[in-house]
Amino acid sequence: MAMNDLEVRNKQVILKDYVSGCPEESDMHVNIVAVTLKVPEGFNGVLVKNLYLSCDPYMGGRMKNKPGGIKPGSSIRGHGVAKVVDSGHPDFKNGDLVWGITNWEEYSLIDSPESLHKIEHTDVPLSYYTGILGMPGMTAYGGFYQVCSPEKGQYVFVSAASGAVGQLVGQFAKLLGCYVVGSAGTKHKVDLLKNKFGFDHAFNYKEEPNFDAALKRCFPDGIDIYFDNVGGKMLDAVLLNMRPFGRIAVCGMISQYGNNQPEGVHNLMALVGKQARMEGFQAANYYHLYPKYLEMVLSYIRQGKIVYVEDIAEGLESAPAALAGLFTGCNVGKQVVEVARE
Amino acid sequence: MAMNDLEVRNKQVILKDYVSGCPEESDMHVNIVAVTLKVPEGFNGVLVKNLYLSCDPYMGGRMKNKPGGIKPGSSIRGHGVAKVVDSGHPDFKNGDLVWGITNWEEYSLIDSPESLHKIEHTDVPLSYYTGILGMPGMTAYGGFYQVCSPEKGQYVFVSAASGAVGQLVGQFAKLLGCYVVGSAGTKHKVDLLKNKFGFDHAFNYKEEPNFDAALKRCFPDGIDIYFDNVGGKMLDAVLLNMRPFGRIAVCGMISQYGNNQPEGVHNLMALVGKQARMEGFQAANYYHLYPKYLEMVLSYIRQGKIVYVEDIAEGLESAPAALAGLFTGCNVGKQVVEVARE
Repeated sequence: MAMNDLEVRNKQVILKDYVSGCPEESDMHVNIVAVTLKVPEGFNGVLVKNLYLSCDPYMGGRMKNKPGGIKPGSSIRGHGVAKVVDSGHPDFKNGDLVWGITNWEEYSLIDSPESLHKIEHTDVPLSYYTGILGMPGMTAYGGFYQVCSPEKGQYVFVSAASGAVGQLVGQFAKLLGCYVVGSAGTKHKVDLLKNKFGFDHAFNYKEEPNFDAALKRCFPDGIDIYFDNVGGKMLDAVLLNMRPFGRIAVCGMISQYGNNQPEGVHNLMALVGKQARMEGFQAANYYHLYPKYLEMVLSYIRQGKIVYVEDIAEGLESAPAALAGLFTGCNVGKQVVEVARE
Repeated sequence: MAMNDLEVRNKQVILKDYVSGCPEESDMHVNIVAVTLKVPEGFNGVLVKNLYLSCDPYMGGRMKNKPGGIKPGSSIRGHGVAKVVDSGHPDFKNGDLVWGITNWEEYSLIDSPESLHKIEHTDVPLSYYTGILGMPGMTAYGGFYQVCSPEKGQYVFVSAASGAVGQLVGQFAKLLGCYVVGSAGTKHKVDLLKNKFGFDHAFNYKEEPNFDAALKRCFPDGIDIYFDNVGGKMLDAVLLNMRPFGRIAVCGMISQYGNNQPEGVHNLMALVGKQARMEGFQAANYYHLYPKYLEMVLSYIRQGKIVYVEDIAEGLESAPAALAGLFTGCNVGKQVVEVARE
């Protein structure tokens, strides 16, 4: 590559071909191109240096052959934290820190920077803006406070509870005075739930032959709120254990993403008997509440009332394995890829 | 039977044994006992003469071996219209017409008459108080207006649409200015939907090899509201056709009542993508709105803006077949059993 003064190497993570089940490391490869560290003449966007990239379950869906997804040969797209290197947009200047949708590469040209959030608080780890202070945080906040209509003293169950979203939902519920139980897939994660995040109880679903029995043990009086990150058999068992007027916030169904035909859920008739509600939601629907959320959660973080566990992979080369690992439960806490420190 | 002056024969419909799938005619038999047409000394309830009995899908569940169900050897219990013959309760007097829970027999002693609704409007058929003016009416009203949050111009789908509840939901939706499509199981019922109830479109689900294709044909822009009376495969197909922020009111799942293990529903992940809500409900939760509903719906009936189709079986002997027929779709409109005219 012949480079001019402002031209540098730009490492990228490329989608090789559409994914059918869950993404695997081999579905991506690392490529190097050249990038000029200046926005093109007349370009109304920004050029950013990516610092932290977020591995999120929804990205698996974007790698399938569906409208609006990532095209083979293109770089992976997802949430991240970045620093503005050059700006053609009046609202952004060099050195601004931002979070939002970016590409999996060292430097990215972003043509609609209006969708980026400017980062104003830097007394907390910058990587938090891929998690507790970013999209997963808004997912937990919108899903729990808005969709679940929680009340003090209610019985709350969270699946994938040590993940990016689950660990927050559990802590929000505890702060509200709920009884909180979480499920996760390793002993280490279960220990985190009980000892670090303050859940009242937790269990390793891989060691439970009968989810219904496990739930009845943890919730002898039933479940008011289920924050569902996994779908499938666990959802089916929860339906049998709902309390009257219970709420199920459907955040995701990671247990099903690898199946071309998702497993059937058999116990929906329980919704009628229990007059229960099941509601799907997306964080983007609650972004207008972000300033309010940020104020609340920064205060909790600074007071030590909420902790956030991250699993940080070093370097863009580690990104394909980190993303794939999300679907097999390799991550402990929020999975982040650190591309550069600053 | 030795009878005193006030003693008469009381025909009853008895549950022979617990039902496993859907109830069949042979699960019940008709029995004759004696009844004294006077409330016992000190009894705080009422003795009623049953006029119309209601066949409702929920009754199938009460005939299974489950807590709160009907015991073998006892008479079937359900909603009905009755006349007070003798009263030990200060709020009721001879000749009062009531609707509420009664037994499948000619005369019933009711020990908690507080649960009965007094009938004040008799310019409409009395049998309507088993349907449009009774529990199915409140089911349609609560389910559509409260659970579905309907708005003018929205796209509404109703399954089992010519039934006791479905025909009302469709007409309510039309009166609100919605686009309404219904499914039913015979050509005759489909004709009723289009020509009598004013649905915009209707289809016979038994002639549709692919429910998803049928729905896409009727709803090229998707479904805002699904009033679900059937569950199973139709629900699964609807999930693929929901519009953003769509609502599914789960009223019942009659397609599943005969299965010991209900069919699996595979497309719940669509709730997340569409930020859609699915909610189970029961009419009893909306009974506080009954006076308001009655005012609205009586006015519609008197103006001819709502019609109500009933399928009236004559005589208590016909009740077992009428109830069983509900589960195979034999009824056309609300299934009622006429026990006596007055």
